[in-house]
Amino acid sequence: MRIQVINPNTCQGMTDKIASAAQQVALADTHIIASSPKHGPASIESAFDDVIASAALMDEIAAGVEQQVDAHIIACFGDPALDAARELATAPVIGIAEAAFHMATLVSHRFSVVTTMSSTINTAHSLLHKYGFEDHCVNVRATDIPVLTLEQISDEIFHTLLAECRQALLVDKAEAIVLGCAGMADIAARLQHDLQIPVIDGVTAAVKLAESLVQLGLKTSKIGSYRPRQVKPFIGRYQHWGA
Amino acid sequence: MRIQVINPNTCQGMTDKIASAAQQVALADTHIIASSPKHGPASIESAFDDVIASAALMDEIAAGVEQQVDAHIIACFGDPALDAARELATAPVIGIAEAAFHMATLVSHRFSVVTTMSSTINTAHSLLHKYGFEDHCVNVRATDIPVLTLEQISDEIFHTLLAECRQALLVDKAEAIVLGCAGMADIAARLQHDLQIPVIDGVTAAVKLAESLVQLGLKTSKIGSYRPRQVKPFIGRYQHWGA
Amino acid sequence: MRIQVINPNTCQGMTDKIASAAQQVALADTHIIASSPKHGPASIESAFDDVIASAALMDEIAAGVEQQVDAHIIACFGDPALDAARELATAPVIGIAEAAFHMATLVSHRFSVVTTMSSTINTAHSLLHKYGFEDHCVNVRATDIPVLTLEQISDEIFHTLLAECRQALLVDKAEAIVLGCAGMADIAARLQHDLQIPVIDGVTAAVKLAESLVQLGLKTSKIGSYRPRQVKPFIGRYQHWGA
Amino acid sequence: MRIQVINPNTCQGMTDKIASAAQQVALADTHIIASSPKHGPASIESAFDDVIASAALMDEIAAGVEQQVDAHIIACFGDPALDAARELATAPVIGIAEAAFHMATLVSHRFSVVTTMSSTINTAHSLLHKYGFEDHCVNVRATDIPVLTLEQISDEIFHTLLAECRQALLVDKAEAIVLGCAGMADIAARLQHDLQIPVIDGVTAAVKLAESLVQLGLKTSKIGSYRPRQVKPFIGRYQHWGA
Amino acid sequence: MRIQVINPNTCQGMTDKIASAAQQVALADTHIIASSPKHGPASIESAFDDVIASAALMDEIAAGVEQQVDAHIIACFGDPALDAARELATAPVIGIAEAAFHMATLVSHRFSVVTTMSSTINTAHSLLHKYGFEDHCVNVRATDIPVLTLEQISDEIFHTLLAECRQALLVDKAEAIVLGCAGMADIAARLQHDLQIPVIDGVTAAVKLAESLVQLGLKTSKIGSYRPRQVKPFIGRYQHWGA
Amino acid sequence: MRIQVINPNTCQGMTDKIASAAQQVALADTHIIASSPKHGPASIESAFDDVIASAALMDEIAAGVEQQVDAHIIACFGDPALDAARELATAPVIGIAEAAFHMATLVSHRFSVVTTMSSTINTAHSLLHKYGFEDHCVNVRATDIPVLTLEQISDEIFHTLLAECRQALLVDKAEAIVLGCAGMADIAARLQHDLQIPVIDGVTAAVKLAESLVQLGLKTSKIGSYRPRQVKPFIGRYQHWGA
Repeated sequence: MRIQVINPNTCQGMTDKIASAAQQVALADTHIIASSPKHGPASIESAFDDVIASAALMDEIAAGVEQQVDAHIIACFGDPALDAARELATAPVIGIAEAAFHMATLVSHRFSVVTTMSSTINTAHSLLHKYGFEDHCVNVRATDIPVLTLEQISDEIFHTLLAECRQALLVDKAEAIVLGCAGMADIAARLQHDLQIPVIDGVTAAVKLAESLVQLGLKTSKIGSYRPRQVKPFIGRYQHWGA
Repeated sequence: MRIQVINPNTCQGMTDKIASAAQQVALADTHIIASSPKHGPASIESAFDDVIASAALMDEIAAGVEQQVDAHIIACFGDPALDAARELATAPVIGIAEAAFHMATLVSHRFSVVTTMSSTINTAHSLLHKYGFEDHCVNVRATDIPVLTLEQISDEIFHTLLAECRQALLVDKAEAIVLGCAGMADIAARLQHDLQIPVIDGVTAAVKLAESLVQLGLKTSKIGSYRPRQVKPFIGRYQHWGA
Repeated sequence: MRIQVINPNTCQGMTDKIASAAQQVALADTHIIASSPKHGPASIESAFDDVIASAALMDEIAAGVEQQVDAHIIACFGDPALDAARELATAPVIGIAEAAFHMATLVSHRFSVVTTMSSTINTAHSLLHKYGFEDHCVNVRATDIPVLTLEQISDEIFHTLLAECRQALLVDKAEAIVLGCAGMADIAARLQHDLQIPVIDGVTAAVKLAESLVQLGLKTSKIGSYRPRQVKPFIGRYQHWGA
Repeated sequence: MRIQVINPNTCQGMTDKIASAAQQVALADTHIIASSPKHGPASIESAFDDVIASAALMDEIAAGVEQQVDAHIIACFGDPALDAARELATAPVIGIAEAAFHMATLVSHRFSVVTTMSSTINTAHSLLHKYGFEDHCVNVRATDIPVLTLEQISDEIFHTLLAECRQALLVDKAEAIVLGCAGMADIAARLQHDLQIPVIDGVTAAVKLAESLVQLGLKTSKIGSYRPRQVKPFIGRYQHWGA
Repeated sequence: MRIQVINPNTCQGMTDKIASAAQQVALADTHIIASSPKHGPASIESAFDDVIASAALMDEIAAGVEQQVDAHIIACFGDPALDAARELATAPVIGIAEAAFHMATLVSHRFSVVTTMSSTINTAHSLLHKYGFEDHCVNVRATDIPVLTLEQISDEIFHTLLAECRQALLVDKAEAIVLGCAGMADIAARLQHDLQIPVIDGVTAAVKLAESLVQLGLKTSKIGSYRPRQVKPFIGRYQHWGA
Repeated sequence: MRIQVINPNTCQGMTDKIASAAQQVALADTHIIASSPKHGPASIESAFDDVIASAALMDEIAAGVEQQVDAHIIACFGDPALDAARELATAPVIGIAEAAFHMATLVSHRFSVVTTMSSTINTAHSLLHKYGFEDHCVNVRATDIPVLTLEQISDEIFHTLLAECRQALLVDKAEAIVLGCAGMADIAARLQHDLQIPVIDGVTAAVKLAESLVQLGLKTSKIGSYRPRQVKPFIGRYQHWGA
């Protein structure tokens, strides 16, 4: 099967890193198609970044639809434009935040999120509510590490993240950790080894969920919430979406 | 004072209609500056439309900031990109859905929303939750009237809307009606006259709330959730947002 | 227009102070009619005080109805007898707590209340739930300053309040402050200047909301929850309410 | 032990009826002291009636405190002024709505309330939320029978109530019925016999709960929410409450 | 009347202690029938213990049904198998956790639970939600005292519990204490005396509630949730439950 | 990998059917080990059945732990004893209800459950709350088809289920269907084909989730909620669990 993994920001290093993490857990016959938008911010760390990246992301989803991929993954922890993507697609679309949350509740009763910038905390809370995991997430902890720093995770950053995870265990009584950024995929195993509790990365979680849905023959429901959008006029730089 | 009223879709007729409704309730010394994006969909009736319109809307907010307007109004009932707009602005930013909800709870215990397309019902529910008005809204009723039909409201459309309002009174036991589209501003008074209960339009409600905030000296809080965005590289058609 | 501003306690100094705050933000052609009950407690700091003041408040509302005022404001942060007042009135009735909460959510994502006696904390929480603002208010902080001390706010009291606000910023991560007593109206601007975030006083907020509703032609819905009370026999000191 | 049962309205027939119902379930050595206020409405069917009756009720509670009764019961289904009464009292204070709700959840998973006037539905819902029984009550059904009609329950009224209960079973899937007015105490057994499911009257439920608390040595907690009120000046017809 | 009080663990000393506490508060003509299962764990301190004890408990309930007791009490703070017991019984069935919670909310606005092992905290929270008392319970505090240590409460254990209660008052602002284990029944009065706020033990609370329900003629509703189970084949050690 | 799939009831035909459904979606190198308890009810259709089956289920989990399986699946839609099983196991443990709910929210915004007996509706609602999916499930629809009838699904039963699903689409506006019984695994595809929306069976969903967790290296967190049980004395038929 072919799974499109979209990095919604425009940093190629991050796209490569995500692709590599995805490939590592994919089944032998799963082909990972990584992409990122041609337009938009280098990283997504605010509501503004999210809004701009979301519009650009739509082109990537449309490209995936045209290539008839079997599933789409939105690999940014804010799950930007997830509902709009489901309107465009018929294959399943999975956000990495939701993927991580689902997996976390299967192996723990209460988890904490360890993330990058404080400016993303509101988004995480809003997603937790949307998906129904509010009561299972005890805390969202920001480390104020800029997203792009994660392209190459230094020892110092690793230990900052490890220390924050330990606080989650001690203070929040968290039983598992959800990593709050696609850029942390490569250190999940190392953190899990040091902490001896489940540490969940959304990119790899989303790949397994996408494969699962495909194997079960489940696609995005096209009645109700995700019914196909109506074609209508668009002007200016969005003219290509029009009738 | 100068209030920027942005119609987030690209239909000029709708922009004119909104501007006229806004001007009618504004104070004598309030100057309404109506605008709409140069890019994007002719109407907003799905999550996809919302995502595209949101990105284009950012340019309008930035223009308003440059003109040092005293308040910004986002005149689409989905309150698109409201949080992102508050990151850009220092003046107050008000969405017309939130404006209508606030006013409705001041004159009734429970209200219903009467709106256009069924595809916007999810958005309305999600906004009601976000703002905290879930327990006060009994129902969101769609009439499946396309948004652009509202540019000129025919007698037939008026009576369809009136009939739906009556259902809200009878079935939902609604005590007030919130109109779910900026394009309905001009018939609120007529509906209120016929129904003899409060009928609230978001555009006019937002204008009065904007004036109120300005007169009270209240601006968007710039610490925490709406702190100014960090400048960073943007590429492609969003390059102008970059460093 | 004429707006009745009722101080529900019987302290004349407080009534004068509230009237002055209200007048300061009112439009040029708004006439503020301040009043306070002829019966009841000098201040409202407990459920018991609230119950007694509420009964006396009804006479004031009735007087306002007879004078055909355009709106009524209940200027005590517990919003005493708000629903009962709406049964008596046809014009809008606004409580200052609800007014302040509404305004706070328009300029911040999360706010804290800074109030007087600890004995009023329960009431504040119960109002936040009733109106739907529970998720937006992070904390209700009492200073245990007796209400009547606020008649003349000394420098010491001002600094106690300022310190409590600073705690709200630091500890609660509040983005705006709601002042929890009508007696604090005159220091809102000074606190806002020192804190550099929105500081909202309910009296002034209520005046602007009342003016807004009147200008929008919105009155209390008289079907359902606030339908007119049925006339019936009353005895003793409430005989005047009877048939 | 001595239990004060207060009918908060001023209809003597209702007071007698409540006293008789209370006495019937009381233990042999329980002395029921029935009373009703000297001031206020003949019946409580709106927020306005509730506000007036609440103030008058305070005098009755104070009388009970002076007589050193072992428990106070507020025998109106709106539980008027319950919190204020707990500030005045040291003995337990029980409202008949809360009493009925507690008992209902011990013998059923979901119950419906069958009550008098539609104008009391909001109050019932607000109490259900306050006490935490929202998820256990499926519906609040009004029959629009005026409260005072219940002084002598005719066969017609009995059958109206029975029919409403049957609807609750069929439509709401209710497993028990809570009767929504103190005036229905005498027909609970007859309804239970006809319906073959638990039918709970608040007056008798409150008597048993009051006896239970007394026998367990449990009194109203006087720290925090129900701490004694502070003495302060009161004027006019409430002067007797002052310093 | 005859009330069956079942200790769901298999420790005879605990059964005796519970029986004695129950008898002390029972009415003169109430006969307490204490029992405990012939199978299962010596104490219940985990979900696993709860599952095993629950199955064994069913035999005791069935024995009580055969003896036609007037009410059943499940005297373990996890209220194990309460719903299943209500399916078997027609008389009322009361859990001691629910009993204690009900009583606590009648004499306080907010209470804390002081319990034994941390491993029971999740169960307590889940019960609080189920019954609707989540907003009334501020905290569940574990002391990590093993349940069986409570058979004989030493001075050291008493002071550990007392200290934890004091923390609840100071830190949680609790207004009453609910004791989280049947084994604490004998020290409730002593703790209440030292703390001067209500201290509630579930065993005694359940006895009074059971007597109250019986005197009110209220039995478990046998339609809906607690309808009688359908007879069907059972094999192995549960063969006696079969057709 | 080896996955233990436990049918918690004692009907061998059902076990075979579940095993076959599980095997069909499993990866080539996944070995399904199906089992069912030696003790307990032929089907689980009430809280009583659930309690008895839960105790017997513990032996199966323990057997799986001894065989060092890579994951355990509890294949009854009530997810009986899931938390207790997680205390015993270190490998992941998945219930089929939770598995189906997770998958449903990835391909739809709102789903309905179509299940067997009405007596299982309460359990489904309680699970939806526990997992956080309350807002995503619009309705739980019972068909009152006895569980064991599903061993061989006749055309009549298929059409009863299909008709109920169609009601869910029309009345509930459901966008996907979750099948509420392990015995329906074999008709999910046929229903999905006829309805043209996602139809989710819990057994197959659980197999894919179990494989995913194993491939991600995620195991049950053994700190906090699911820490290993403490060994202690057990008597009678549960003696084998003791020290």
